[in-house]
Amino acid sequence: MRNYIADSISEVTDEIVKDLEKERAIDNLDIFNQPDRDVIKEIIIKLNRIVFPGYYIDRNYKRYNISTTISSLTEDVTYNLVKQISLALRFNEKYEKCIEEQCTCEAEKKTVKFMKQITKIREYLDTDIEAMFEGDPASYSKNEIIISYPGLYAIAVYRYAHELHKLGIPLIPRIMTEVAHSKTGIDIHPGAEISKYFFIDHGTGIVIGGTTVIGEHVKLYQGVTLGALSLKGGRALSEIKRHPTIEDNVTIYSGASILGGDTVIGHDSIIGGNVFLTKSVPANTKVYAQNQELNFDTKTEA
Amino acid sequence: MRNYIADSISEVTDEIVKDLEKERAIDNLDIFNQPDRDVIKEIIIKLNRIVFPGYYIDRNYKRYNISTTISSLTEDVTYNLVKQISLALRFNEKYEKCIEEQCTCEAEKKTVKFMKQITKIREYLDTDIEAMFEGDPASYSKNEIIISYPGLYAIAVYRYAHELHKLGIPLIPRIMTEVAHSKTGIDIHPGAEISKYFFIDHGTGIVIGGTTVIGEHVKLYQGVTLGALSLKGGRALSEIKRHPTIEDNVTIYSGASILGGDTVIGHDSIIGGNVFLTKSVPANTKVYAQNQELNFDTKTEA
Amino acid sequence: MRNYIADSISEVTDEIVKDLEKERAIDNLDIFNQPDRDVIKEIIIKLNRIVFPGYYIDRNYKRYNISTTISSLTEDVTYNLVKQISLALRFNEKYEKCIEEQCTCEAEKKTVKFMKQITKIREYLDTDIEAMFEGDPASYSKNEIIISYPGLYAIAVYRYAHELHKLGIPLIPRIMTEVAHSKTGIDIHPGAEISKYFFIDHGTGIVIGGTTVIGEHVKLYQGVTLGALSLKGGRALSEIKRHPTIEDNVTIYSGASILGGDTVIGHDSIIGGNVFLTKSVPANTKVYAQNQELNFDTKTEA
Repeated sequence: MRNYIADSISEVTDEIVKDLEKERAIDNLDIFNQPDRDVIKEIIIKLNRIVFPGYYIDRNYKRYNISTTISSLTEDVTYNLVKQISLALRFNEKYEKCIEEQCTCEAEKKTVKFMKQITKIREYLDTDIEAMFEGDPASYSKNEIIISYPGLYAIAVYRYAHELHKLGIPLIPRIMTEVAHSKTGIDIHPGAEISKYFFIDHGTGIVIGGTTVIGEHVKLYQGVTLGALSLKGGRALSEIKRHPTIEDNVTIYSGASILGGDTVIGHDSIIGGNVFLTKSVPANTKVYAQNQELNFDTKTEA
Repeated sequence: MRNYIADSISEVTDEIVKDLEKERAIDNLDIFNQPDRDVIKEIIIKLNRIVFPGYYIDRNYKRYNISTTISSLTEDVTYNLVKQISLALRFNEKYEKCIEEQCTCEAEKKTVKFMKQITKIREYLDTDIEAMFEGDPASYSKNEIIISYPGLYAIAVYRYAHELHKLGIPLIPRIMTEVAHSKTGIDIHPGAEISKYFFIDHGTGIVIGGTTVIGEHVKLYQGVTLGALSLKGGRALSEIKRHPTIEDNVTIYSGASILGGDTVIGHDSIIGGNVFLTKSVPANTKVYAQNQELNFDTKTEA
Repeated sequence: MRNYIADSISEVTDEIVKDLEKERAIDNLDIFNQPDRDVIKEIIIKLNRIVFPGYYIDRNYKRYNISTTISSLTEDVTYNLVKQISLALRFNEKYEKCIEEQCTCEAEKKTVKFMKQITKIREYLDTDIEAMFEGDPASYSKNEIIISYPGLYAIAVYRYAHELHKLGIPLIPRIMTEVAHSKTGIDIHPGAEISKYFFIDHGTGIVIGGTTVIGEHVKLYQGVTLGALSLKGGRALSEIKRHPTIEDNVTIYSGASILGGDTVIGHDSIIGGNVFLTKSVPANTKVYAQNQELNFDTKTEA
């Protein structure tokens, strides 16, 4: 019987190796030239420690040397981002044929540009925390929000990814937001433009497309889709605005879908639960589904 | 070029350290006075081993010394819970100014009270398993349910968190249910009151608010929201019943939303998929959306 | 006080041990006779490395010995699958009373049968990647899809689980798809039959029931349910077709629910967002919810 297994293993191996020679899309043996998801996960953890010092606990650090802490975290993130970005740049046509040193040089410049956005990101996230605390009667305290709310985590990761996206870096921004998607069920494309005071409650099932524009003080509940109307055409459509614009002070309740690149939700509007919208709505409007026609059958007891 | 990176790191560090001095909500340097999510995750794993001995496998233990196993797990959980609860109590106004020893003493009392609820939690979870097995034709066996169903995991974590919540412990219950939310997509607030024989199938996207009350033999499918009608008012609303009451033997199909603190779903009722309800329903009622008006266009083939 | 804690721990332990004697469903002390989720997670990771060599990076391997890499991964997966399958077979009535050697022998045969399906699985997944790239304008490249898209991960795990399911292996297929469900929010039952060129976009909240049949070039968005109409009857129903059939070239937009074992969606049809369908639809049909009656209230500014 042992021979049966041993023989089978070499038979299966031969089959697979032969299959690999077909060189299909599924096969890419160039394993050393792509970013590493695990390193990127580690970068997110360290960015969180820089951005929310004290909340994302690292028991090795003490508060009296906060400057040393920030300095070593900054160095660590910078070092790893340069490496990952120089690998990712190969996937951008512009840098496809660069020699290694050019790529590294470009990656260093882009990394420094990104790191200089950290205080701006902190300023934005501070307003997001403010919005969450105001909007949720169930929260004990801002601490509870920062420690436990998945919405804040997803927004933070999106804000990092968005800055990297703006610098024209491929792969890494999307890997980052997919890390957050996997953890929270909240799927925000790095290309979306989201202003201050953004609040996501519960969040599971939220999808925000890559050309969405969101104003200040916007609040989204679980299951909201800000999506495209139709997606025939593949990559040719990638530069066109396909997702809606949400103006300031709009609240969108659970399960609502708002679709289309020309759809604008005017400021101070409220979109009710499960509403399905493909057209614009003027400012100060409340949209709710006309009370769904329901049938009520009283069951006769058996 | 190396100097460029080195200089940039110290520049970025200086910017961030300066930014930290603004002491905004985002900044809390008091890192030693809050509960630790990783320890709480570990506590959940060990509680599962106590509550489902044999299912949550620990290959280090053997069955002939089950009493020793339970004893050492109990000691471990107790020790860690006391530490975490004494940290968390600081976030409750009542204990804000306690000296450390008082906090520890209070934490010990609360931990013991919690541990004494474990047999009751086991009794409840046994009925949940029963309900799941009866309700799901796709399951091979109770073993499959316990080993692989995310609903049971989410309910178990909720039942631990709810007991801690009733003891007035801040932060920890919510951190626990957010661990389950991240793993399963099921978001149950620790404040909800859920009776025996509770069955969640699939579960992704379920949200159960903090003042929901659920009777026995209730069954929920994926994407169900038991939520609040409107959430203006922030923390001032935190004591009011804002979420519905679901009586015994009610089944709620996927995507249904039931909102409002005065909404009561009478016993033995069935709420159909995607129904949106903001009013009460008498007992023995079947509610389903009137067959949605659909348009059927036969496409002419190109 | 120390004594208070020590006494309480032994008291709690006694209570729990006594409670364990009730031998309820929740208690299964036979911990050595069930598959191990952590080992199964590890098997998924290694199958991904075999199936997508180069994408699922293992920095220890180099490309000039791809045959050695595949060979050692194949050996590793085979070894672990044999062990897990022989444990799982006990839960199949047919093998309940086998002696250990018979179980191992049966497990070896089934494992080899499974491993021989890997090139077929690779062929199918290659078409899935093709479908994803064609269907998503937001993707940079096929690399981005393979590295970061949760839909592809969920489909790959489903394709492994489905082959194991067809071999009559209990528990392991479901544990596998629940690993993917937890990571992606996409819940595909191993029993479903899914043809080539399958595309899932975003994916959170998708549920595909165990008797669903899906043709080629089918595309699903987040929150789609392919489910059963009613689930009274428990395990007695497990052999009946309870979930819909989706023919070739069908697209189903976000939040749509299609229910029932007799429901057939004819080829080349499009099912719009949030549509709720319990009846069949002929080929070449476009189904969309009649524009939901919405109320638009212009709020008077305060």
